[in-house]
Amino acid sequence: MAATIHPLKPGHAASLEPMMALVAGDMNRVNSVILDRMQSDIPLIPELAGHLIAGGGKRLRPMLTLACAALLDYPGDRHHKLAAAVEFIHTATLLHDDVVDGSDMRRGKTAANLIFGNPAAVLVGDFLFSRSFELMVEDGSLKVLKILSHASAVIAEGEVDQLTAQRQLATSEEHYLGIIGAKTAALFAAACRIAAVVAERDSAVEEALDRYGRNLGVAFQLVDDAIDYASDSEVMGKGVGDDFRDGKITLPVILAFARGDGDEQHFWREAMAGRRVSDADLAHATKLIERHDAISDSIARARHYGQRAIDAIAPFPAGPAKSALIEAVEFAIDRAY
Amino acid sequence: MAATIHPLKPGHAASLEPMMALVAGDMNRVNSVILDRMQSDIPLIPELAGHLIAGGGKRLRPMLTLACAALLDYPGDRHHKLAAAVEFIHTATLLHDDVVDGSDMRRGKTAANLIFGNPAAVLVGDFLFSRSFELMVEDGSLKVLKILSHASAVIAEGEVDQLTAQRQLATSEEHYLGIIGAKTAALFAAACRIAAVVAERDSAVEEALDRYGRNLGVAFQLVDDAIDYASDSEVMGKGVGDDFRDGKITLPVILAFARGDGDEQHFWREAMAGRRVSDADLAHATKLIERHDAISDSIARARHYGQRAIDAIAPFPAGPAKSALIEAVEFAIDRAY
Repeated sequence: MAATIHPLKPGHAASLEPMMALVAGDMNRVNSVILDRMQSDIPLIPELAGHLIAGGGKRLRPMLTLACAALLDYPGDRHHKLAAAVEFIHTATLLHDDVVDGSDMRRGKTAANLIFGNPAAVLVGDFLFSRSFELMVEDGSLKVLKILSHASAVIAEGEVDQLTAQRQLATSEEHYLGIIGAKTAALFAAACRIAAVVAERDSAVEEALDRYGRNLGVAFQLVDDAIDYASDSEVMGKGVGDDFRDGKITLPVILAFARGDGDEQHFWREAMAGRRVSDADLAHATKLIERHDAISDSIARARHYGQRAIDAIAPFPAGPAKSALIEAVEFAIDRAY
Repeated sequence: MAATIHPLKPGHAASLEPMMALVAGDMNRVNSVILDRMQSDIPLIPELAGHLIAGGGKRLRPMLTLACAALLDYPGDRHHKLAAAVEFIHTATLLHDDVVDGSDMRRGKTAANLIFGNPAAVLVGDFLFSRSFELMVEDGSLKVLKILSHASAVIAEGEVDQLTAQRQLATSEEHYLGIIGAKTAALFAAACRIAAVVAERDSAVEEALDRYGRNLGVAFQLVDDAIDYASDSEVMGKGVGDDFRDGKITLPVILAFARGDGDEQHFWREAMAGRRVSDADLAHATKLIERHDAISDSIARARHYGQRAIDAIAPFPAGPAKSALIEAVEFAIDRAY
């Protein structure tokens, strides 16, 4: 088949609407599975899980599984259960992340750990994680189990790696890319790849969808990390400046630090060590980041990965699924503005 | 085959030695898998996991998989990887438990969360949990995956249930038994049951081994909870009185509260609410527990479940494996003295 080149269009008002419209029927089924399978005889479990799950979120990862299945004209319904499993893995990592980061906000609401306590957030995360494997076992594909159990281990490695790199200004861009590739992109890649498995397509298709998801995931996290210095909490749904106060070494910091003079580097060392965490310090950090174009260059890096995501699905036939997947990449990048 | 009745022998100096001798060769293989598969490019992962895993512990759960496989004359080696998976699930729950409880000690050493911090303990637990599923996927049995993913979900439910019951003196003995059945006995049962799966025995054998493990697990936890009021930290390998200070409602407390007069019940309400947590309060609690025979009656309850564990394997032929499994039950109960 002839591949059409789809260049990323900066400035174009992209949205997730086409993807949401494409998978709306399937997503209703996935939501039913999610609601059904987060139940338990222990009331605190659906209560806490429901706070986060019913609390919204784009459900981007399960949506990717559904949209990739649509791209392959998959006619069955196995992907509903598996998309729910993907969302459960994601929800479990969010719950544990918030405990790890001591977050105050998540998806524009008070973080679950603050309302229900860290112990409950850890344990309900464990429950959802176990439940996701039960869903995969019900589906019965060892290949899917392999993909998602491996992705889960890689996510945990990425999170530990991020913890180790915290406050370490020696973290290189390469190291940072390794961290976000593991903690974020691995699940995007797996969510897309399993669509090829249920549609029983060959390994070239699996790998193309994996590449699409992985590059989209990297772009998505790059933009997320840029937004933390360029937006307010209403847009972000999480507390702005959280990364700054946590001493998280993200690309805007890596670039601004590398490009800064002696005084600026001194400021970053103090700030990332946790000795400059006031609102004025955050404002100063944002100013330095802007001075060195570290936000726009982070977005440029995201655009690079976004283009690679789009190129990965070039071989697939044009149609609403492909268009939706392309626009999802544009959305992941454009939402920064 | 003729079933021989093995009554539990109180006072007999039981040990785990026969079981350890029975599975010594297999256990070396399991330990190799454990050491090999807790590795990661992220150094903090093997460092933290190694603190807990190399730090000892009886490895009772994987030993049960091996001993049950020996009982069935299983000639293969699939159980090595699966026993390691069982130990990884157990280790992950220990790491998360210590975060949940804010523990100071584990296996006679400083708890991992105190040395490495709660965030690392949560995330390395997640890694080991994911790794356990990768091991199961490598083995390739959907039946084993179903048993252990379900057990993991039940464990998490049991832990959340325990959290909900914390400080609630209205917790009944039945509720308490439900909690320990889920948080402890479910993994004992699964560890034993999977031996029947790899040995390709019928469901009656699976269920007999499940019953053995489940009843042993309940007995084990009953004794553990009794020891917390009857021993010092050297015997226990964890801080004595932890349950008391955490307001954990275990059987000794349930019995002493139910049998106590008004003053005593008032004391328990204050203590479990966290308003009486001094050493003198703990000494008073221990005195009340002794006054009402709540330790010896907890051990009597454990003996009841221990006898049921032994009866569950009555149909299997006599031999070193069966003897070792029986003595493991006696050990689980006798170690209280």
